Amino acid sequence: MSDYDHLAKAIREVPDYPKEGILFYDITTLINNGELFNEVADILHQRYAGAGIDKVVGIEARGFLFAPVLAYSLKAGLVPVRKPGKLPAETVEISYDLEYGTDSVQMHKDAVAPDEKVLIVDDLLATGGTAAATCKLIEQQGAQVVGMAFVIELDFLNGREKLPGQDVFSIIHY
Amino acid sequence: MSDYDHLAKAIREVPDYPKEGILFYDITTLINNGELFNEVADILHQRYAGAGIDKVVGIEARGFLFAPVLAYSLKAGLVPVRKPGKLPAETVEISYDLEYGTDSVQMHKDAVAPDEKVLIVDDLLATGGTAAATCKLIEQQGAQVVGMAFVIELDFLNGREKLPGQDVFSIIHY
Repeated sequence: MSDYDHLAKAIREVPDYPKEGILFYDITTLINNGELFNEVADILHQRYAGAGIDKVVGIEARGFLFAPVLAYSLKAGLVPVRKPGKLPAETVEISYDLEYGTDSVQMHKDAVAPDEKVLIVDDLLATGGTAAATCKLIEQQGAQVVGMAFVIELDFLNGREKLPGQDVFSIIHY
Repeated sequence: MSDYDHLAKAIREVPDYPKEGILFYDITTLINNGELFNEVADILHQRYAGAGIDKVVGIEARGFLFAPVLAYSLKAGLVPVRKPGKLPAETVEISYDLEYGTDSVQMHKDAVAPDEKVLIVDDLLATGGTAAATCKLIEQQGAQVVGMAFVIELDFLNGREKLPGQDVFSIIHY
C-alpha cells in the first residue's frame, strides 16, 4: 500500500502488448483523468521545486506527455530527446544495446549548455537503456543531471542499476 | 508586426528539412527558453480558460510538447492522438490523403466521451490533413471540438480551409 495506489489503479494493464508475454502499463487512462493528471504533475513539481532546474528533458514519445508540465511549473526550458532523424538541426547521439540489436537517442547539440541543471522525465523506467543513454547525452554536453523522474518503474527489471549515482524517483512501482 | 514577434524570432528556420525546398520551422529553440515556453503556455491558457474544456488532445509527436501544459492549467484530461500501432488498447482510426499516399491517426476508443468539450493542440497547422482527421476522430465519438490551437500556422498552405466551422487559433503566422 502506498499513497499512490489510486494512481496505480488508474493505469490500464494490457496483456501481450507490444508482444506476447509482455504486460504493458498504459498511462493513457491515468492522464485521461484531469484530476489525476494534475496530481501526478504536482507530485513531480513538489519534488523538484527549488532545485534550480534549468532544463527539463522529455524522452520521446510518452515522456513528452509529462515533461512539458514540469518545464512549465518550474519555469525551465523544455528539451526533446528523440529517436534518430526526427530533430531538424545539428544533433548529438548515443547508441545503446537492446535485447536484440541497438537503438539510439538524439538531442539538439545546442539544447543544453555547460553547467545547466537538468531534470530528465519519462513515463516508464524499464531496463534503463534509454534513460542511461539520455544521461550520457546531457553529461557529454557538460550539463548536470540533477534528477530523473518516472511515473512508473518496473522494479523487477533493475533499470536503476544502469543509472549509478543518479537521483531516480518514480511515483508508481511494480 | 504583432505582439508575438519575439516568439517568432525564437523559432529556428531550417532550410531543406525534411526535404529539399522545404523551410522547416523548428519550435525546439522556442521551448528551450523557459520564459518563452511559459509565455506560449499562458497565451493558450488565457484563450481557453473558462471554456469548460474536458479534454485536451495532443497530436503526436510535437503536439505532445504543448498539450500537457494546457491539460494541466485547465485541469482537463490529456488525450494522445498517435500514428497507427502506438496505442495499446482498442482504438478508432481515420485515414487521410497526403500529396503521395495516405496517412492515419488513432485514438483510444474510450478517450473521449459523448458531449465532452475537447481542445485540439498541435505545434503546427500546415495543410491541415492531420488536424482535420483528428477532428473527425473526436466528433465520431460524439464529443465536441470547441477549439483548435497551434503555435505556428503556415497561412500560405490554407490548412484552415480543411477545418470549416472550427474555432482555429494560431500564435505565430507565416
